Amino acid sequence: MALQQFIDTYLPAIESELQQAVGLAREPHYEGLHEMMSYHMGWEGEGAGPKARGKRVRPLLVLLSTASAGSEWEDALPAAAAVELVHNFSLIHDDIEDNSPLRRGRPTVWKIWGLAQAINTGDTMFTLAHLAVMGLKEITSPIIALRATHLLQHTCMHLTQGQYLDISYEDKTDLAIEDYWPMVGGKTGALLAACTELGALVADVDEETLTAYRNFGRDLGLAFQALDDYLGIWGDAHRTGKSVASDLVEGKKSLPVLYGLGKNGAFAERWRQGPITQDEVPEIATQLEAEGGRTFTKDEAEKLTARALQALEDANPQGEAGDALAELANQLLKRDV
Amino acid sequence: MALQQFIDTYLPAIESELQQAVGLAREPHYEGLHEMMSYHMGWEGEGAGPKARGKRVRPLLVLLSTASAGSEWEDALPAAAAVELVHNFSLIHDDIEDNSPLRRGRPTVWKIWGLAQAINTGDTMFTLAHLAVMGLKEITSPIIALRATHLLQHTCMHLTQGQYLDISYEDKTDLAIEDYWPMVGGKTGALLAACTELGALVADVDEETLTAYRNFGRDLGLAFQALDDYLGIWGDAHRTGKSVASDLVEGKKSLPVLYGLGKNGAFAERWRQGPITQDEVPEIATQLEAEGGRTFTKDEAEKLTARALQALEDANPQGEAGDALAELANQLLKRDV
Repeated sequence: MALQQFIDTYLPAIESELQQAVGLAREPHYEGLHEMMSYHMGWEGEGAGPKARGKRVRPLLVLLSTASAGSEWEDALPAAAAVELVHNFSLIHDDIEDNSPLRRGRPTVWKIWGLAQAINTGDTMFTLAHLAVMGLKEITSPIIALRATHLLQHTCMHLTQGQYLDISYEDKTDLAIEDYWPMVGGKTGALLAACTELGALVADVDEETLTAYRNFGRDLGLAFQALDDYLGIWGDAHRTGKSVASDLVEGKKSLPVLYGLGKNGAFAERWRQGPITQDEVPEIATQLEAEGGRTFTKDEAEKLTARALQALEDANPQGEAGDALAELANQLLKRDV
Repeated sequence: MALQQFIDTYLPAIESELQQAVGLAREPHYEGLHEMMSYHMGWEGEGAGPKARGKRVRPLLVLLSTASAGSEWEDALPAAAAVELVHNFSLIHDDIEDNSPLRRGRPTVWKIWGLAQAINTGDTMFTLAHLAVMGLKEITSPIIALRATHLLQHTCMHLTQGQYLDISYEDKTDLAIEDYWPMVGGKTGALLAACTELGALVADVDEETLTAYRNFGRDLGLAFQALDDYLGIWGDAHRTGKSVASDLVEGKKSLPVLYGLGKNGAFAERWRQGPITQDEVPEIATQLEAEGGRTFTKDEAEKLTARALQALEDANPQGEAGDALAELANQLLKRDV
């Protein structure tokens, strides 16, 4: 069974679990609150549909981890819903913090309902994520349910720590490569690590296997981010669907940019002078490449990819779900295998 | 032992537990995040000190509930810290949502560090609250720890539901008395109910007693709010420390105001015409009183107070801690007994 078949089986169950989790807050008087969450999740409102929902990569990782660690994937549905809700809560708040008017091609929650409702809607979704993971207590032992809840909360702390750095970097001019990992580890690595670890935890694997699953998720997240940062400057627009070099124009504090800032050369000098225009992009990308930013980023992405795949091997995922998990990783890491 | 002696014993332990809970996020790279939380909690920065901290009524309720239900108050410290952190997370976000520049006489977090950091700092504190309550698993059974965690999360959902209504009422002109309780039940009742219930839960009381403790907290919260709404229009400024009728000028959707709006009389007509000035206050307060708003609010506050005290009697709190709990309730309800 190939990855796509797993996705076809898992996705409807994920959506149904998510709708149940979000539906908990759907009570008389509070219909409007439910509507905002339902809009953000891509179920309701203009533009609702699969595209507005995103790929649900995180819950898929949870379920494939559980299945490949030898348990029934259905057992992990509460954890799968929880990680997706944490992800989406953070998107609702990030969109406010970044002043982003659009998300997946649709107006963001704050853009439609205003700042106050958007903050509170994010808070509601955050709470529902924590309530969702506790659904495990009806399925697993109380000890596993407690561990899963604790793990999810720790993850949220890392997420907010990473986000704190991301925001604080906006005003900083003396950034360097050391500033990258604490931010990305929190913003991207922590939640992906939680996905694979939660999946394995539900399957009640031994501690060594649990660590391998966690490391796989974390390194997958870091490798994905490094690669995304690479493609954000030197990617093929047709392949990535992004406009080339948009990261430079957007001023994103990506891996090659922080590398370049740390070098304190011509690139850093230009960066500190203010926003880069689309016209300047080719020249500045070439400059950053000449200073070693391109090679460095590619090497980092490859190193992290190798580390992620090694961790996956250590986790020793079983059966067709194990193959599908590897396929998903390779797809995310854009490896043609 | 009188209430004050309990407060003198409990408060230092509460502050220490809170500092430990918030300190969890104090890691290299993230010092600034800790600083913002520490400022908001009243420990650091200009104006830090007891006044900036508030009275810590919620954690006191937790500890007195545990002690009066027959267990060691120290066992409930993780829960006490958790409710105070939930309260403070909601204050950080409410201050943004209400556009409030001041909190307890000091500039609010968003006013000093900006919108983005303030939203994220609230999120961090929210997470730390959930992590704090899980400290119970080292003290109580896993089952009680799970129940306490679940209870706290459910409470947060009610909080955000209440806040949703509060925000949505801003633009509504057809409000009436039925709109009051779903808002105040979420915003005030839910967290106070959680305080007394969590305290009793840690003491592992029977379900009937647990319900009585919960009802006591909830009705205490509702009675307190009704009374506060009464005093906000007809209170004695010297006694309440508020300027008389400030609620009318602030346009607060309080109990007497919603009563008056439901009546659709002269008061409602004037209210819908826009903000009330300080000069108009005596006349409008008299109008609202003539329409029955004053008597209605007083009766509601008295009914809820009686219900809260009956629930407390049903809970049958024991010993000096039980007396102190009753004293705290009477103090909050401004009853001279």
